[in-house]
Amino acid sequence: MLGVCYYPEHWDESRWRTDARRMRELGISFVRIGEFAWSRLEPSRGTFTFEWLDRAIDVLHEAGLKVVLGTPTATPPKWLVDECPDIIPYDEQGRPRGFGSRRHYTFSSETWWKESARIVEIVAKRYGTHPGIVGWQTDNEYGCHDTTLSWGPEDLKSFKRWLRLRYQSTDQLNEAWGSVFWSMELASFDDVALPNLTVTEPNPATRLDFWRFHSDQVAAYDQMQCEIIRKHSPGRWITHNFMGFVSDFDHFKVGDNLDLASWDSYPIGFVEKFPFTEDERTRWAETSHPDIAPYHHDLYRAVGKGRFWVMEQQPGPVNWAPWNPVPKPGMVRLWTWEALAHGADVVSYFRWRQAPFAQEQMHAGLNLPGLDEWSPGGKEAMQVSEELAVLGALPETSQAPVALVFDYQSYWSTMIQPQGKDFRYEELCFRWYEALRHLGLNVDFVRPSASLEGYPLVVVPCMTEVTEAAQVALDKANGVVVIGARTGSRDRNFRIPENLPPGPLGTLTGNRVIQVSSMRPRLSDGVSGAVSGHAIRWREYVETSASVLATFDNGDPALTEKDNVLYLACWADAGLLAEVLELATKKAGVATLRVPDFIRIRRRGDLVFAFNYGTEDYTLPEGAVPVLGEMVLKPQAIAAWRG
Amino acid sequence: MLGVCYYPEHWDESRWRTDARRMRELGISFVRIGEFAWSRLEPSRGTFTFEWLDRAIDVLHEAGLKVVLGTPTATPPKWLVDECPDIIPYDEQGRPRGFGSRRHYTFSSETWWKESARIVEIVAKRYGTHPGIVGWQTDNEYGCHDTTLSWGPEDLKSFKRWLRLRYQSTDQLNEAWGSVFWSMELASFDDVALPNLTVTEPNPATRLDFWRFHSDQVAAYDQMQCEIIRKHSPGRWITHNFMGFVSDFDHFKVGDNLDLASWDSYPIGFVEKFPFTEDERTRWAETSHPDIAPYHHDLYRAVGKGRFWVMEQQPGPVNWAPWNPVPKPGMVRLWTWEALAHGADVVSYFRWRQAPFAQEQMHAGLNLPGLDEWSPGGKEAMQVSEELAVLGALPETSQAPVALVFDYQSYWSTMIQPQGKDFRYEELCFRWYEALRHLGLNVDFVRPSASLEGYPLVVVPCMTEVTEAAQVALDKANGVVVIGARTGSRDRNFRIPENLPPGPLGTLTGNRVIQVSSMRPRLSDGVSGAVSGHAIRWREYVETSASVLATFDNGDPALTEKDNVLYLACWADAGLLAEVLELATKKAGVATLRVPDFIRIRRRGDLVFAFNYGTEDYTLPEGAVPVLGEMVLKPQAIAAWRG
Amino acid sequence: MLGVCYYPEHWDESRWRTDARRMRELGISFVRIGEFAWSRLEPSRGTFTFEWLDRAIDVLHEAGLKVVLGTPTATPPKWLVDECPDIIPYDEQGRPRGFGSRRHYTFSSETWWKESARIVEIVAKRYGTHPGIVGWQTDNEYGCHDTTLSWGPEDLKSFKRWLRLRYQSTDQLNEAWGSVFWSMELASFDDVALPNLTVTEPNPATRLDFWRFHSDQVAAYDQMQCEIIRKHSPGRWITHNFMGFVSDFDHFKVGDNLDLASWDSYPIGFVEKFPFTEDERTRWAETSHPDIAPYHHDLYRAVGKGRFWVMEQQPGPVNWAPWNPVPKPGMVRLWTWEALAHGADVVSYFRWRQAPFAQEQMHAGLNLPGLDEWSPGGKEAMQVSEELAVLGALPETSQAPVALVFDYQSYWSTMIQPQGKDFRYEELCFRWYEALRHLGLNVDFVRPSASLEGYPLVVVPCMTEVTEAAQVALDKANGVVVIGARTGSRDRNFRIPENLPPGPLGTLTGNRVIQVSSMRPRLSDGVSGAVSGHAIRWREYVETSASVLATFDNGDPALTEKDNVLYLACWADAGLLAEVLELATKKAGVATLRVPDFIRIRRRGDLVFAFNYGTEDYTLPEGAVPVLGEMVLKPQAIAAWRG
Repeated sequence: MLGVCYYPEHWDESRWRTDARRMRELGISFVRIGEFAWSRLEPSRGTFTFEWLDRAIDVLHEAGLKVVLGTPTATPPKWLVDECPDIIPYDEQGRPRGFGSRRHYTFSSETWWKESARIVEIVAKRYGTHPGIVGWQTDNEYGCHDTTLSWGPEDLKSFKRWLRLRYQSTDQLNEAWGSVFWSMELASFDDVALPNLTVTEPNPATRLDFWRFHSDQVAAYDQMQCEIIRKHSPGRWITHNFMGFVSDFDHFKVGDNLDLASWDSYPIGFVEKFPFTEDERTRWAETSHPDIAPYHHDLYRAVGKGRFWVMEQQPGPVNWAPWNPVPKPGMVRLWTWEALAHGADVVSYFRWRQAPFAQEQMHAGLNLPGLDEWSPGGKEAMQVSEELAVLGALPETSQAPVALVFDYQSYWSTMIQPQGKDFRYEELCFRWYEALRHLGLNVDFVRPSASLEGYPLVVVPCMTEVTEAAQVALDKANGVVVIGARTGSRDRNFRIPENLPPGPLGTLTGNRVIQVSSMRPRLSDGVSGAVSGHAIRWREYVETSASVLATFDNGDPALTEKDNVLYLACWADAGLLAEVLELATKKAGVATLRVPDFIRIRRRGDLVFAFNYGTEDYTLPEGAVPVLGEMVLKPQAIAAWRG
Repeated sequence: MLGVCYYPEHWDESRWRTDARRMRELGISFVRIGEFAWSRLEPSRGTFTFEWLDRAIDVLHEAGLKVVLGTPTATPPKWLVDECPDIIPYDEQGRPRGFGSRRHYTFSSETWWKESARIVEIVAKRYGTHPGIVGWQTDNEYGCHDTTLSWGPEDLKSFKRWLRLRYQSTDQLNEAWGSVFWSMELASFDDVALPNLTVTEPNPATRLDFWRFHSDQVAAYDQMQCEIIRKHSPGRWITHNFMGFVSDFDHFKVGDNLDLASWDSYPIGFVEKFPFTEDERTRWAETSHPDIAPYHHDLYRAVGKGRFWVMEQQPGPVNWAPWNPVPKPGMVRLWTWEALAHGADVVSYFRWRQAPFAQEQMHAGLNLPGLDEWSPGGKEAMQVSEELAVLGALPETSQAPVALVFDYQSYWSTMIQPQGKDFRYEELCFRWYEALRHLGLNVDFVRPSASLEGYPLVVVPCMTEVTEAAQVALDKANGVVVIGARTGSRDRNFRIPENLPPGPLGTLTGNRVIQVSSMRPRLSDGVSGAVSGHAIRWREYVETSASVLATFDNGDPALTEKDNVLYLACWADAGLLAEVLELATKKAGVATLRVPDFIRIRRRGDLVFAFNYGTEDYTLPEGAVPVLGEMVLKPQAIAAWRG
Repeated sequence: MLGVCYYPEHWDESRWRTDARRMRELGISFVRIGEFAWSRLEPSRGTFTFEWLDRAIDVLHEAGLKVVLGTPTATPPKWLVDECPDIIPYDEQGRPRGFGSRRHYTFSSETWWKESARIVEIVAKRYGTHPGIVGWQTDNEYGCHDTTLSWGPEDLKSFKRWLRLRYQSTDQLNEAWGSVFWSMELASFDDVALPNLTVTEPNPATRLDFWRFHSDQVAAYDQMQCEIIRKHSPGRWITHNFMGFVSDFDHFKVGDNLDLASWDSYPIGFVEKFPFTEDERTRWAETSHPDIAPYHHDLYRAVGKGRFWVMEQQPGPVNWAPWNPVPKPGMVRLWTWEALAHGADVVSYFRWRQAPFAQEQMHAGLNLPGLDEWSPGGKEAMQVSEELAVLGALPETSQAPVALVFDYQSYWSTMIQPQGKDFRYEELCFRWYEALRHLGLNVDFVRPSASLEGYPLVVVPCMTEVTEAAQVALDKANGVVVIGARTGSRDRNFRIPENLPPGPLGTLTGNRVIQVSSMRPRLSDGVSGAVSGHAIRWREYVETSASVLATFDNGDPALTEKDNVLYLACWADAGLLAEVLELATKKAGVATLRVPDFIRIRRRGDLVFAFNYGTEDYTLPEGAVPVLGEMVLKPQAIAAWRG
């Protein structure tokens, strides 16, 4: 189904009915509103002006639209910031981050929690049982613009409290952090200092705790909002719209609060943000890389425990990337269908109409700036809407043959201590995902502690700390398991495990890592044997009791196998990675369909979809009988068949 | 005529007479002095030590030199900074900018205005009617070192005052800025915050107002100095020495205060500062790009309403660029003649003698460091002086066949919201200028509201806001008008016009821009038709009722024509730009003379000059009879003939 | 002999005896301890817990190990920082640099001197006469992490004091600095401001004084520690472990306090820090460039007046460079032998055992993380130990045929005023050193004022200020002297000399530099004559009364000769530099042995060593009879023979 993000407060009230009518014409079912409207709801403390929102919701509801209401906490108004300056966040350089855009609050501020609870309660009470309201969105894009971590006095205060709870005594904290190194020992929790602006790098264990602390705060803050909403709005679901490639907090933990996950899909902007090569950036500039959106769909399906929306779908060029090209014709339609193929319940476009003012005036909408006139993206949405009507209800998403274990803490840990400056956890996971999708496979993301049973193939690109729960899950995994480098390289206190990496997985893998090499660009190490290619960026020196399937140039183990567990002791280049994962699929008995690098296949139930991101035609597999599209898949076209 | 910048306070008084005599020997007529001497004129508050300057002016005057006296406000002395810390500027990072170099004041400080008025009045009274004083320079290089904008408490105070005057009520301000977006609404002018250090980008309308506010302050501050000088120094002219490529304030508005404009010409340093390609930077490292100085000559001729000087002419290597090569032999002479060819009244070298101390000790002078001995540049100045004597008075500059509409606000607007990170207004104008000069054309710069009548060809590379005055001027233009992309894309409040871009020019051009694409390097879009080449960086999607002269690859309009108005819907690469402008000259009936890319032609009255920036010879056009130079123009040579 | 850095406080006391025993098994003679242990020695003010250190020293001593004790001042504990916040340093951006790593103090703080004296005295008294203690290390790596210069209130206070002593009156200061320029004159020493955060560049003379001031403070601070130690620890020597490529203070002046110098050798990390080309960085990533360690050995042999140690030798991959590859097998052995060949008394590995916690957990040790098990580097150390036992005592190091005059102030001066942004003093010296070593030569570093008698060849790559002492030394030099560009280009007050550069060497060289050109990459100037190649980066225009051996393309002098003095008027590319230095060796009658660029030769007394950094074999010179290694030197192998 389709939805749209709408800002009645941006337009004269006289236009609302027309807007609602045209939404229906476009086949829109859901409308998200309200998430930035605090200054219009409470223009000064205690003065409430909800009447306009009452009327707006009524207009939408009367038009047959279902409303998703956002809590307005992403944009505290000026009067509140002036009254309570302790809500202001600080950047890592120690500077307060000013009013004048959005997300100008720190999760550490008790005042902020109090004020958030107050406004959420007021909104939830007023609209909680309105028949037009079907669901809620908490806040907006937690963590966007580097707003998870904050480095101010409120943060230090809260961090000390968090540490006191975690460690109970400074002896335990000093032991955990190895404070004896460089005389960093603390005599009291009051001695704790922020881990920024130090002369050289701060203690990595402190930094990891600082990151965990902030991540915990995001989840708890979200939970606070959810509890208030649930109390006052029975029978409605709650979501949050996550932002892609924001990994500063554990999205799974926030997901635990929610009924469903949603995320904001800006496939083209992400091409500039993700560490692609310049060749890739140029090649995919006007379509996005074919795994950018799917990667997130699969991730947020996991975060939402099977249910997710795209809350904001790019409907044309946006405003916030270094360059913002117009997507190729067909891409808005393609992205929409792709989200549905990956299991999205709803794809909701951002935004209804391009705003001719303020920060996002260059962000396309379904309508031209300020006008009641379809934009090119609006016309593609119309096409999807018509196709959806023809195709009917989509089948349920079923479990994929491959599980990819994704772990936010591994991102933090490798950011804190990359050891080689191009070791990036997100890129590593993305490359493994990409290689699997070249084989035509559906992929499920799973969190580290989740059960892996039933998956013929499990991949763990990197999991720095192997918790007890994660170890149990891996022990019980009955499929083939492929484990990547740096897994088990740290214990819970960010120390190297006593038995050396992979620590708790030493027995499972049969391996012990005695040293590691990080390699600058243009350095590599050849790998040959059952698979071949090159190690780049990272290579481990492993002692093993397992079978050696492939070796580095000097004869050391590169890929080992013990029972159902493969261990890959390096960052593999594209060729090596493809061979390793193909080998694993064979061992796992998983059927594959190798596709060109510009084609992607995705199954939803018995429907198979194909997507063409390239510049050449692609002929669908023999036997496919398209229920959508044609046998010859043109550039930017999609097709679907039963299979 | 020739001039020189001289610092008597840098040298023992016993050397002044020799200096003055040798200036005359070199053919110098004008000497600029005094602009950094505050601490020598008033070593502590109220203690004045003007006697040395009295004597210095007398020595120069007695030697037959005409003195241009600078007000010393660019360098407030330490005692003043300590006494009045509120004059200190702040950088965009929120840090005060310390004493110890120059321009350490903010235009927002009321204290600073009072102190400036005080010292200017004292100086103007003392020397206003001295027979040796022929003119004045206000301050020095406004805006240099990023000193137009300042981000401190005084700036916020003045900005609020400026906004109150502009908007009268916060309702109007909120409406203008679109403050409803992200709950940015303000209840009082006291709520206004500086648009820096926000979490993500601040409101672009606020930023534009902040820029306008600072630009207005520069003009008003200059006007204050001019009024004081005029009161006490009747019959003398006033100028200011502008710095090239400093576009943070509207130079035309400062020019309105002045009798003539002047600028500081450092052609080689600018090669490193301007966004040239690395190939261009290397090629032109020792001569400068052949349009760098001319572009500014033509700009400041406009700022000076027809009259301009080069107040500081680079006489050899300088000190402030990343690399500072020695100019090729002949270049100092070439630059001097070139300035005269573009209409300069006087070319004044900076500086008389290289200072062997302080920040600019690596900056060449006409004399070697500390010595009474000509530098290589000094010897070239001598040659110009002799040639000038032979050639006699130069004819008056006449109106050019081409007007280039130049608009400072468009620079601010595209800096604030580039949308594609290589969209640079100054580079765009420069490339259009360069292409016109490849056709051997004289170019006049004009400001947006100026009359365009009498120009066979008018080019508007980009003018984001089309004011009513600008619209009237374009409507009345009777030549061919070429309008570039983004013109009319914002209204006065930095909003997208209600009728979509080009807004007020919709009727004139017959166009409506429905979306735009910014393209990363290596992306481009082919253009073909009456002209051909490629769009790079920027491309617009245009609906048109005009004739389509050329289209993009997908058939959309790229170049349209309605009556006398062409509209180019992209950033054109060099080939496309050359074809568009050549086509326009043909339509306009403007005669052209295509020259190699290292040759430039410039007419002053009936004198035609040619300049060779290259490494190969160039033969002058048939029929030319050189009155200066030879028929075969050697590298770094110049020639002139009547024609 | 071999040593090791050990941290008993990092390990349970039960492991100390085993550690000591295994050190002896490895052939370790010396153990450095204690330098980061303040918080374990004085956990709160006045509470001392030295007993554990007493026992640790006893254990080591009883095992026959000689202990070098470090003063713990590099890591002031948290209670001290909280009690005395005035010890905190400030970065150039004006921000305090926080607790949480190391070196968080400024040398300008009087409080810090008092606290340092207190703890040093307590430690020196307690252990000064312990029979296990044979020597002392002051502090740790002065200047590392940019900690020489600090920009806080304490620094300004101390700087004023230093200036008052140097200049006596502000008149003299104003004259020296050329403060008249830009009205920077000061009326009182209280007017002095820090030379940071100015609007444009601060006065270079001020900056140089600020650098000298801090350099002086480091030397005086070290002297204060040394005096306390000498008082309480008779008969023990004192050293400091300098850090490579930290040139912010004059190491020779600190060396004057010491009995021997030592330095911390991390050859692979430095490959990423030094301005090598990307090709060089890739080529030498896993071995280091073959001159990185030798350059420092020769420098610190000079700083130690003939005696030096490697206090910290990289024993495997480290943690602090952007990439940290595992060294090629054999490199730990090679580096150890190389240090000995260059005259090191002791090579001490950092560290005994890899710490599985805190900032340096990815830094290899001789033992695997947390374990009693040799790492790969530990095994190579074992091999050296056995070879040393076979070879017996090494001969004394004798004077080299070439002296390279190295001058820290020239680094500061060219950093302050590079004029061309790739003019880097350290790189220049390094390239001259590299070229000399390609000729198989031993090189001695000497400080500017040192006697040059007895050296057949003296090279002065650049010496911006030629002091009277340096001039006398050069006048008296009886070998061939090669002087590079920018020498004598500044007087003691950072002014251009009155007779123009090379100032005091005008007569000696016969030259006068009238202007200079700094050239961007890809610009160059041909040189031909007795030598040929290209000038890059820097070229001088010289008037000369000397013989001209080679000229630039335009015929100007490039290499001149007057008696025994050659002057090279440019930054020479590799080809030109090689020819100039080869010509100089011929003139000097110095025998050379040209080696491939991956081979290095070094003599220690009658022992000749060869080292292979490459990937190909090298056959030793005819007549060599290896006492270590083989005639065919394999990659990463070493050999030694008598000759």
